Amino acid sequence: MKTIRVRTGRPYSILIGRGLLDQAGEQVRAALPKAGKIALVTDSTAGPLYLERVAASLERAGFTVLRCTVPAGEGSKSAETLAALWEKFMEFGLTRTDAVAALGGGMVGDLAGFAAATILRGVDYVQIPTTLLAQVDSSVGGKVAVDLRAGKNLAGAFWQPSLVLMAPEVLDTLPDRDFSSGMAEVIKYGCIADRTFFDFLAAHGSRKAIMEEIESVLYICCNIKRKVVEEDERDTGLRMILNFGHTIGHAFERLGNYEKWTHGEAVAAGMCSAIEVGLRLGDGRKEDLEELKGLLEAFQLPTRISCRGNEAWEAIVSAVGLDKKGAGEELTMIFLKRLGEAIAVRRKRTEILEILAGLCGRG
Amino acid sequence: MKTIRVRTGRPYSILIGRGLLDQAGEQVRAALPKAGKIALVTDSTAGPLYLERVAASLERAGFTVLRCTVPAGEGSKSAETLAALWEKFMEFGLTRTDAVAALGGGMVGDLAGFAAATILRGVDYVQIPTTLLAQVDSSVGGKVAVDLRAGKNLAGAFWQPSLVLMAPEVLDTLPDRDFSSGMAEVIKYGCIADRTFFDFLAAHGSRKAIMEEIESVLYICCNIKRKVVEEDERDTGLRMILNFGHTIGHAFERLGNYEKWTHGEAVAAGMCSAIEVGLRLGDGRKEDLEELKGLLEAFQLPTRISCRGNEAWEAIVSAVGLDKKGAGEELTMIFLKRLGEAIAVRRKRTEILEILAGLCGRG
Repeated sequence: MKTIRVRTGRPYSILIGRGLLDQAGEQVRAALPKAGKIALVTDSTAGPLYLERVAASLERAGFTVLRCTVPAGEGSKSAETLAALWEKFMEFGLTRTDAVAALGGGMVGDLAGFAAATILRGVDYVQIPTTLLAQVDSSVGGKVAVDLRAGKNLAGAFWQPSLVLMAPEVLDTLPDRDFSSGMAEVIKYGCIADRTFFDFLAAHGSRKAIMEEIESVLYICCNIKRKVVEEDERDTGLRMILNFGHTIGHAFERLGNYEKWTHGEAVAAGMCSAIEVGLRLGDGRKEDLEELKGLLEAFQLPTRISCRGNEAWEAIVSAVGLDKKGAGEELTMIFLKRLGEAIAVRRKRTEILEILAGLCGRG
Repeated sequence: MKTIRVRTGRPYSILIGRGLLDQAGEQVRAALPKAGKIALVTDSTAGPLYLERVAASLERAGFTVLRCTVPAGEGSKSAETLAALWEKFMEFGLTRTDAVAALGGGMVGDLAGFAAATILRGVDYVQIPTTLLAQVDSSVGGKVAVDLRAGKNLAGAFWQPSLVLMAPEVLDTLPDRDFSSGMAEVIKYGCIADRTFFDFLAAHGSRKAIMEEIESVLYICCNIKRKVVEEDERDTGLRMILNFGHTIGHAFERLGNYEKWTHGEAVAAGMCSAIEVGLRLGDGRKEDLEELKGLLEAFQLPTRISCRGNEAWEAIVSAVGLDKKGAGEELTMIFLKRLGEAIAVRRKRTEILEILAGLCGRG
């Protein structure tokens, strides 16, 4: 088992190791000696696979467990579901020394985490992520939220978990497309912070090869994010480098109505576009782009998403923020100085948009 | 004008002085130089009296102002109203450097404060309390929340304001009963922390006399709460002394369905009951109880609320927590060692309840 200690405002541990689902009870007991009740939130995808195993382990350790299963899908990350969880937690008799646990992907973690951050003004929160994306991304950083009509993650909080349990074997049940989506974020860590890791991934260019080294992969990704988040817990500076590929990626996600492209697919194409924008501004190296494309393709990830048409263009303008901000205002974008090293560059929004117009065939 | 600097995690200032409503714009501008938009939340009581004055002042200082008026009454402190505010803020185009302001009593402050704590994972929050209770109580401490079916303030956060503006002249429009309700909390501060202040209040035993010294009264109350909150921001210890009169007071409020008795009336009778319980346990002085009763009566506050009948008894049992906790467990209650000095005492819940049974004529 590998352990990462995250030293945010309230420090906590990430445990990575096979078998942790069935040891959830003893690990949560060790982390939260005073808790008596656990409200265990899952969704209709992860629930049928893992809920009873985790609940049984918690019960063996003496916890009283409330099982809450919400429908799978982004639609559950809503104010209505949040309020319903609040009411359920109180009917269950949750107190300030008890805890909420999330068992599932990023949606479950964001929703249950926000409920944990706010019920009784905040109780302990345990994360048991069951997708690669949730393991390498949302399990570190403490960002929790629900969606609003105007967009994703607009109401939320910063709430660090008290414990994260990562059992790599849960990834065996992931569809290939979801595994690849997570790999986009894994590859991102190599791009922004660790050239050696990028090369390691290139040398393990298949799901099977990655799974043979999965504990190390999870450890390296979470450890990179840990370092960044510890320095910038409330997302006011350095943490921006984690957004590499995400500005344009968000445009692609939105363009596909959050259905056509997975988050990882949009980020994969977004990273390639970001490097291209960087190249036009004189940052980065063309050969890095080719290397990245090769690695993304090994995991069936797109290196380009078409941005032709007016709808696509509106999504791009919105991602660059020009619909809300004045033309004179600047945007911070993340480029690669080289593979393994990200740089944040401030440029006028209009300048970025002009380059994107060229890339989208509008120039 | 008087100023209190509160040194919580994010420090802020409380300004107390006549005319601050019309200076809101310049004061908010000084505290939040980067903000462009203010979502100004009020209710149907305070709104018609003060909303346009405050909005006009903010607009003169260059802010774009969104006016949000919710219905007066505890019913607006709900998850539904919170979600509606979130959506309105986003339609308004609020960004992370903008702010939410609350203009009204405790309900508005709790609701708008929780919305500020969570929209975009937290934006700056300005409080402009318009009741005596809100001025001396909720303007310090950073507790924000909405109610759930199971009880009041069950979902919320700790979110410190960036600025509190207290214009004492807004109290002129308060009904006598609401003024008295606030006086119960004012008197509480004398009881728990400042004998000299208690004597000062006794020497100014009318609304008119208090209003002549109102800036000092507000200053002293907020300053006592500041000291307590600075030492215990997240309410894990010392802050409990602020609950003097509130354990039994909550039973009275609940008994009256939060309608028959105002918060202050329930706290007034609750303080007297708490002293009586203390006396039976050997803490406190009988003459202090008589002095307190005299002062409460000067402000038309009850010194006793009948707790006969089964419904009343259930409310008391619930307030002592025996419906949820085992009989062996302890409860911390706040008693007075003497006027001006509170003590926290841990006793078995059953022991406290036995004494209350006697006081309620069930012994």
